[in-house]
Amino acid sequence: MIRKISLGLGLALAAVLLPAPAYADALIDNANGYTLDGEGNLVRFTGLLFDVETGRVTRLLARRDDRPREVDFRHDAQGRTVIPGLIDAHGHLMGLGYNAIQLDLSDTASLAEAQARIAQYSAENPTLRWIVGSGWNQESWGLGRFPTAADIDAAVSDRPVWLVRVDGHAGVANSQAMEAAGITNASQSPAGGRVERDGNRPNGVFVDTAMDLVANAIPELQPPLRDIALREAQDILLSYGVTTVHDMGTSASDWAVIRRAGDRAQLRVRVISYADALDTLLDTAGDAMTPWLYEGHLRMVGLKLYADGALGSRGALLLQPYADAPGEMGLTLSDGTLIRNRLSRLSLDRFQAAIHAIGDGANREVLNAIDEVAYRYSDDRRWRIEHAQIVDPADIARFGQHGIIASMQPVHQTSDMFMAEARLGPGRLQGAYAWNAMLRAGSHLAFGTDFPVESPNPFAGLAVAVSRQNASGQPPGGWQGQERISLLQAFAAYTTGAAYAGFAEDRIGRLGDGLYADFLIIDRDIFDATPDEIRQAQVMETWIGGERTWVRGAQNRAASNAPPMDAPVGPMIAPEDMPEGR
Amino acid sequence: MIRKISLGLGLALAAVLLPAPAYADALIDNANGYTLDGEGNLVRFTGLLFDVETGRVTRLLARRDDRPREVDFRHDAQGRTVIPGLIDAHGHLMGLGYNAIQLDLSDTASLAEAQARIAQYSAENPTLRWIVGSGWNQESWGLGRFPTAADIDAAVSDRPVWLVRVDGHAGVANSQAMEAAGITNASQSPAGGRVERDGNRPNGVFVDTAMDLVANAIPELQPPLRDIALREAQDILLSYGVTTVHDMGTSASDWAVIRRAGDRAQLRVRVISYADALDTLLDTAGDAMTPWLYEGHLRMVGLKLYADGALGSRGALLLQPYADAPGEMGLTLSDGTLIRNRLSRLSLDRFQAAIHAIGDGANREVLNAIDEVAYRYSDDRRWRIEHAQIVDPADIARFGQHGIIASMQPVHQTSDMFMAEARLGPGRLQGAYAWNAMLRAGSHLAFGTDFPVESPNPFAGLAVAVSRQNASGQPPGGWQGQERISLLQAFAAYTTGAAYAGFAEDRIGRLGDGLYADFLIIDRDIFDATPDEIRQAQVMETWIGGERTWVRGAQNRAASNAPPMDAPVGPMIAPEDMPEGR
Repeated sequence: MIRKISLGLGLALAAVLLPAPAYADALIDNANGYTLDGEGNLVRFTGLLFDVETGRVTRLLARRDDRPREVDFRHDAQGRTVIPGLIDAHGHLMGLGYNAIQLDLSDTASLAEAQARIAQYSAENPTLRWIVGSGWNQESWGLGRFPTAADIDAAVSDRPVWLVRVDGHAGVANSQAMEAAGITNASQSPAGGRVERDGNRPNGVFVDTAMDLVANAIPELQPPLRDIALREAQDILLSYGVTTVHDMGTSASDWAVIRRAGDRAQLRVRVISYADALDTLLDTAGDAMTPWLYEGHLRMVGLKLYADGALGSRGALLLQPYADAPGEMGLTLSDGTLIRNRLSRLSLDRFQAAIHAIGDGANREVLNAIDEVAYRYSDDRRWRIEHAQIVDPADIARFGQHGIIASMQPVHQTSDMFMAEARLGPGRLQGAYAWNAMLRAGSHLAFGTDFPVESPNPFAGLAVAVSRQNASGQPPGGWQGQERISLLQAFAAYTTGAAYAGFAEDRIGRLGDGLYADFLIIDRDIFDATPDEIRQAQVMETWIGGERTWVRGAQNRAASNAPPMDAPVGPMIAPEDMPEGR
Repeated sequence: MIRKISLGLGLALAAVLLPAPAYADALIDNANGYTLDGEGNLVRFTGLLFDVETGRVTRLLARRDDRPREVDFRHDAQGRTVIPGLIDAHGHLMGLGYNAIQLDLSDTASLAEAQARIAQYSAENPTLRWIVGSGWNQESWGLGRFPTAADIDAAVSDRPVWLVRVDGHAGVANSQAMEAAGITNASQSPAGGRVERDGNRPNGVFVDTAMDLVANAIPELQPPLRDIALREAQDILLSYGVTTVHDMGTSASDWAVIRRAGDRAQLRVRVISYADALDTLLDTAGDAMTPWLYEGHLRMVGLKLYADGALGSRGALLLQPYADAPGEMGLTLSDGTLIRNRLSRLSLDRFQAAIHAIGDGANREVLNAIDEVAYRYSDDRRWRIEHAQIVDPADIARFGQHGIIASMQPVHQTSDMFMAEARLGPGRLQGAYAWNAMLRAGSHLAFGTDFPVESPNPFAGLAVAVSRQNASGQPPGGWQGQERISLLQAFAAYTTGAAYAGFAEDRIGRLGDGLYADFLIIDRDIFDATPDEIRQAQVMETWIGGERTWVRGAQNRAASNAPPMDAPVGPMIAPEDMPEGR
């Protein structure tokens, strides 16, 4: 407090002292930096100044700009490319974590190798009540038959084991699992499924709907395991440069896991949450979006709703029958009346709605509902349509109205393209995964991956967005190539667009103007790269709120064991007076 | 950062500048202050210095001590008594709040007045789906009969109304409530209850177990109403000088309400939480007590368990049959095996156990369980026995072993004394509500009220603790007068003892040594007062973490509308240079 200085030195001294900062400045220098600015222009920078205390960017520096003479920390990007942290606008955080902690058999080459892997995993996880895994393929094993309970018993017989085949259409249980699930000689195959037998006795193989006979007996994961799953999910996301996720369908249990991490300063990735049910939303948030919690790491903003199912299973609601199933038009999971009621209910408390709509029928239904409700809640509601995969071309223009957000997942396009052609036939693909048309219609575009359905790697998404080609470069010219967009547009959908979709454009999505110092140092200049090179891009360092939370090679494990928000990994930031010749 | 000053003024200048504090100091002066110190001695002070930034006490000042020449804020206690905030070691936070927001008819003098009150409450609460209230007494109304559905319909007919009689043994429903509950002419009286009728038709009056026919139809309160209930509960607690509560049996829903308040900086009272169920505990806390959340305002530390029921309903488990019901010995709600298992399970994760035990049989069972488990978990477990109302004198010494905490509620003694005599007979009262014997046995004593079962007013508890007499001064000499304790001992049980019981002695319970500046300004010197004067003591101001959160007359309503943790009520603290002659 300056007024306490009573030495008679007066204002002149005060003026000299005031510029000394109350906080610590940090400089990321020698960067090949890219970010969008507030008007959507691509901005280049070579230096990034941020305040360590607040974790916010204070200034971007061009090559010609003088560097501050003194900073508290300086980090040399060594000419590498620096971009804002990427935002996945549609993922399932705990689903990614639960997948990550399960036993993965996808790279086993023989039954014996799988058995060894199962036994090892079991030994490494003595507290697990069930061993659950997936990824096996008897074809890769050259086995000529499905594995049976006896095969699995040979690896683990003291606990139930349940292993799902690589395609998800069959599973094998060991004897303990069958006993725990109450499977006996009397157990019958349900409709749409098959309990395989050795004579009269179920042999451990359960196909399609019969899989539930065992899967339903698996106990819920204990909270400490859930905590590990969240840690693993964060490690995966950080390794791909995903600094914020929109968690689609956060359950009460998911929320509890995320809060436990937040309470212990172990929430590194930022999470914008959409509740799985109205009760979850109201219990968590009361009568308004939660505040930003944990220094901008968590907020619940709204509700996930489902208008229809998915295209692969013919659950997507279409305007015309499926080309490959003329008697079917898909499923209505929430009808127009329910959607209107929910939109009204949510809007009263200024909650956001994120509505899953895949088929052209479902998209039209949701657009109709928004049209009707919008006149009553005309201000900034940011209604989200999730996926928007198949939209009647006549409806695409409507995405530009009422500020609707098209929340799309580029990689779904390459994963689905051949299936989509079968489902819809060649004449109805014009509005399929049509992100270019969405942009031209004035929609707000936000990109994501739907992880763990797809890998959360955003660089694959960027590559698909600009090429409409899969990793093999197929098809030539891109599938429905007119829907390719520029890398700048795709980059915006993964940064500023995704931030806007979560009411977070005031703090994330770009670098500058006091937004958070969430940024990546990557191994190549994606703005000077082919789609294939973009897809192969690797993240070297991931920084969130001015803290280095992930470093390639450091490694994940170290990063997740340290209290990451307080103590960044490894040697971290070099003090300004440390020699740079490392 | 001093090294940035490059004016050649050097160390001399730096030394002059350094004493300017980085934080703001506040002084409560002219206090008649009492607190315990770390050794349990009563300490007097006239000045209290705290750091506004951290909310922690920096120094206590005696009359002879020089005051700091400059502080940022100064508040004159005007010679009033200042004591640490009081801690209720056993209460039900949301229960208090739900009671507070219900319609209260206890002071109505006629049916007409009650009808007017019901109608007014209904009009004031248009969003309530049901009107629920209590406190009516047809005797006070001079009605000569119970009120009926028709009487209530005359006040409110558009919504269900359910009003419980003052004694809790009957309720009256209006027609809408009966309809919502599915009451028809065919509804039968259940065992232990009576559906009253007008001819064949239920007339709205439901007695004893029949009350559930209606009460079970009342919908759960919506989250915004729960938020209001918590606000009301906090206002009540603050008005009595309760700055921390041990919430006994926090449900998942309770926790959600408390977190919503915490997330919005509306949690003023500190809450130490004991979960209502193991699932709640694990979901909330994972595998260890939560950290202190919201700047020391919330922490979940363990689990509430029930060994038996209550004495009034003969649910307390006794060693010998009830004197007034020779065939009964009470109820075992958790047997010794379950208690041992729970104690072990909780101890593994270093959670605390708080076990309700009222009868001498239940207390012995819990003591036996602790004896057996203690050798395996001998460090600082602080097993709590809640209530410990009736303890065999031979067992009292055992409370001094294994660091057991006797968590007792003085006012229960005066509420229960005549009933206890009936239940136990005259020969078995030696170990009843025996807080003096508990202290002599070396038990850790923590006091509370079990609010809303009793009023949360801690001064009534202090008065009972030293007198064993009710508000009418009965019985002369006190009930089982040998169990009176000194005010110093009672004060300790409400401050340092209750803090210790919640693993919080490092931050609350006394003033000094960097603990939180949680203190009360009260209207009299309780250390120079009769029990009756202690009982009548009024809190003038309640401060928590150095912030004035409640002021008598300011008032509750204003306090609860403001964001209380950031902006204290009213003119708050006078700047040092403001004239004091107010």
